[in-house]
Amino acid sequence: MSAETPRRGRRGSRAQAGLNQPPFGQVERLYAPVEVLSADQVEQIHRAALRLLAVTGMRILESGARALYKAAGCEVSGEDVRFPEGLVEARLATVPARFTLRARNPARNLTLGGGAHIYASVGGPAYVMDNERGRRDGSYAEMCDFLRLVQSLNVLHQEGGGPFEPLDLPAATRHLDIYHAQVTLLDKCWQNQTLGRLRTMDGIEIQAMALGLKLEEMAATPSLMGIINTNSPLQLDIPMAEGLIAMAEHGQVNVITPFTLAGAMSPVTLAGALMQQHAEAMAGIVLTQIVRPGVPVLYGGFTSNVDMRSGAPAFGTPEYTKAAQASGQLARRIGVPFRSSNVCAANEVDAQAAYESQMALWGAVTGGAHLINHAAGWLQGGLTASFEKLILDAEMLQMMEAWLTPIEVSEAALALDVVAEVGPGGHFFGTDHTMARYERAFYAPLLSNWDNHPQWLERGGVEARARAGQIWKQMLADYEQPALDPGIAEELEAFIRRRKAEGGAPMN
Amino acid sequence: MSAETPRRGRRGSRAQAGLNQPPFGQVERLYAPVEVLSADQVEQIHRAALRLLAVTGMRILESGARALYKAAGCEVSGEDVRFPEGLVEARLATVPARFTLRARNPARNLTLGGGAHIYASVGGPAYVMDNERGRRDGSYAEMCDFLRLVQSLNVLHQEGGGPFEPLDLPAATRHLDIYHAQVTLLDKCWQNQTLGRLRTMDGIEIQAMALGLKLEEMAATPSLMGIINTNSPLQLDIPMAEGLIAMAEHGQVNVITPFTLAGAMSPVTLAGALMQQHAEAMAGIVLTQIVRPGVPVLYGGFTSNVDMRSGAPAFGTPEYTKAAQASGQLARRIGVPFRSSNVCAANEVDAQAAYESQMALWGAVTGGAHLINHAAGWLQGGLTASFEKLILDAEMLQMMEAWLTPIEVSEAALALDVVAEVGPGGHFFGTDHTMARYERAFYAPLLSNWDNHPQWLERGGVEARARAGQIWKQMLADYEQPALDPGIAEELEAFIRRRKAEGGAPMN
Repeated sequence: MSAETPRRGRRGSRAQAGLNQPPFGQVERLYAPVEVLSADQVEQIHRAALRLLAVTGMRILESGARALYKAAGCEVSGEDVRFPEGLVEARLATVPARFTLRARNPARNLTLGGGAHIYASVGGPAYVMDNERGRRDGSYAEMCDFLRLVQSLNVLHQEGGGPFEPLDLPAATRHLDIYHAQVTLLDKCWQNQTLGRLRTMDGIEIQAMALGLKLEEMAATPSLMGIINTNSPLQLDIPMAEGLIAMAEHGQVNVITPFTLAGAMSPVTLAGALMQQHAEAMAGIVLTQIVRPGVPVLYGGFTSNVDMRSGAPAFGTPEYTKAAQASGQLARRIGVPFRSSNVCAANEVDAQAAYESQMALWGAVTGGAHLINHAAGWLQGGLTASFEKLILDAEMLQMMEAWLTPIEVSEAALALDVVAEVGPGGHFFGTDHTMARYERAFYAPLLSNWDNHPQWLERGGVEARARAGQIWKQMLADYEQPALDPGIAEELEAFIRRRKAEGGAPMN
Repeated sequence: MSAETPRRGRRGSRAQAGLNQPPFGQVERLYAPVEVLSADQVEQIHRAALRLLAVTGMRILESGARALYKAAGCEVSGEDVRFPEGLVEARLATVPARFTLRARNPARNLTLGGGAHIYASVGGPAYVMDNERGRRDGSYAEMCDFLRLVQSLNVLHQEGGGPFEPLDLPAATRHLDIYHAQVTLLDKCWQNQTLGRLRTMDGIEIQAMALGLKLEEMAATPSLMGIINTNSPLQLDIPMAEGLIAMAEHGQVNVITPFTLAGAMSPVTLAGALMQQHAEAMAGIVLTQIVRPGVPVLYGGFTSNVDMRSGAPAFGTPEYTKAAQASGQLARRIGVPFRSSNVCAANEVDAQAAYESQMALWGAVTGGAHLINHAAGWLQGGLTASFEKLILDAEMLQMMEAWLTPIEVSEAALALDVVAEVGPGGHFFGTDHTMARYERAFYAPLLSNWDNHPQWLERGGVEARARAGQIWKQMLADYEQPALDPGIAEELEAFIRRRKAEGGAPMN
């Protein structure tokens, strides 16, 4: 037994924590990113991807997009678009490295690029889940509760595009109700739905109203993000192309994210999957710059591997982590801000969910990601949004932000005189140096319990998953809806009424 | 809903995994470490620590150690030892940057230094815990079971000095039984107990027998490690000084680890705690080089923070992570191999245990640690060794090793021709490129379950903590004791009988 493994009973007592949250804000990342590829390897992958775009190209299913590529100098034959040498790099040159996203509450405006990064809540799962009711179809009321928590969690900068499907609402108009919830229950930035032009435009029009802008003023006001997944390998389908074009036309931010699962939709080798991802991402990014040179756009890295026994996607694997860090290097190579994610395959909010998410998060954060998508709430490979996972992730994100806050090194912090004064065998609890700093010296957890074991048992032995359930319920009870100008509220409702009457945006 | 958050039922089926383990071995770390301090800040901390040693110095309670410091040129007054300018850096110059640790099975020999790192199992807790029996006093039989698992887990390179106290054995001779178990149930390297000379020498003599060496031959054969905690602030107590000297005299590896909890035994500021850690570590390292110039030694970083509401140590905090990475920088500054740890404060093997351990592990691994101590099995701030945490940690360590294995970038891996051949809209499952590689392409988990949710429920909905319980029981049933020469076995038993008859090593 050594001093670092203390004898029984040594740890002290303390009351259960309340809801500890740092204020809303962005922490600048000052540490250098982790590089898992050499500069030569980055170049090798980049060159191979350019060659793939020149020789094989992309299948572009939407004719308007093909016409845009053609007008810009691409070779179009049938549905296939090939990119002549030099065109891609010339078009990438207009991508902005840093920009601001406008929220309806100016205090929630966001910077993106450089060291400024954004955590967005989970977007798009089919199911919802919590401790009491298990996994189930989601309703609109529950979705609104989830959004209230996203608003309440200060560490979340942006809402991620609807946390799960409210299956009690009709499919063709559901997006309008989701937008209404996003724009009224939150005053943070949110993500648009970009499946088809109608749906995309509805989101842009609604956000224009929320910001008090005319639609044409949106072009100069990046505010919404939208995820554009290529249909890997090497395809861009019609709804995604329409969404991309509508977003770019109106100055909004596309996040071009190939869905390159190594061993399924891309080569089983990570280098091959990354090369394909890079090619598909560049093809999409180029299209945004053709539509509107200078419009903000992100490079999405989502490469993971499948479980080769089942073909099911795996997440938060070591391959995922490496791919995230390598993707960051590839995005920096072409000067485009980088999006990664916080993902896992776990079925429950257990140790597996935590370590898979940590593997993904460390990949994203040390990979230099500017947008960490699905940063909170993602479970079961993205099929499910979990209320408890939302809280678990918020804790892990808060810890990341505290880690990103650099160590202060100054004469006062070094405290040479204090150590000399306390001297051998003393202690620092009562010193002025400690007393002046202790309240803000260390990260205070939201979810972690630091009781000693007897106390912990006495208080019910509540594990992290159950504590997360207590926390979101308390947070939901404490939620206050952000104010919205009554005129804008009315305008929004009228718009939604009209669009519903028109039939919304039917899926084909 | 986007492509990355799939609709229901998409994930495939697969049988429950067996016990997936890569073979025993060391993965070279090729990535650059994460640096949270600038070079100037490292220098500032280093200079302040040297100044602290020169002006205030250390209280050295053991007279033999004081005499050694004095003979080497330190100023000794009473129990206080001060280090004149230049002495510390001159003595640090003889520390080897890389060395080999000999195991009784040569296939388990270990390299340490550069990119070569070692994962050691938890050492020293008071209690043991598992899912069925909860936390309790440990017995020798249970301790032997824990050691059998440490032997069986290939990712663990080294046993960590006795996983918990076997309280059914008498205190004065318990260490002899622990050594006997370490040396017979495992053929891996193990850690010695270094509380007092007698106990330390018993370990060295036993390992000499196990290696078939004379005691005097041990000086040229680094094999055992021993943790030396300074009694922070600025003290080295008698048992630890005796252990350090005995280890160094016999060519064995001290791991000098100040126990600097920011806000308790060191300043509340991380820079202050690190400065004090650095001073104390250098004082201990210098003593090893005075005893035996060139003897291998490690710089231990264990700085964490306390929970300021209770004074209890917290582990796996963002401060811990930063301190680990900063400690790596400080250790590299003085050219001494670096030790960090995988620690947490959680009471159960839940999501908190996983994310706290991940925060610690990422700090250790990206901090460039050469020894990751307590790498598997640590729970409850080091008070408890957990059978299930052992398995959880083994999974997380296996994932780290897979992450540390670089992405292969070659023409074959880039697979440009394969992507071109599969073409837009195709898939890669059946290609020759995939078929030739899929069995070894990705990390195969030990603990993670990748079933889809319906299957997972059908198979009992077993969470990670319960699965870990199933795994260690299966592993224990499969355990095979490594062979030991009968002559050596007899010699060991005779030695232990004699030392027990002599009364062992009574604690004062």
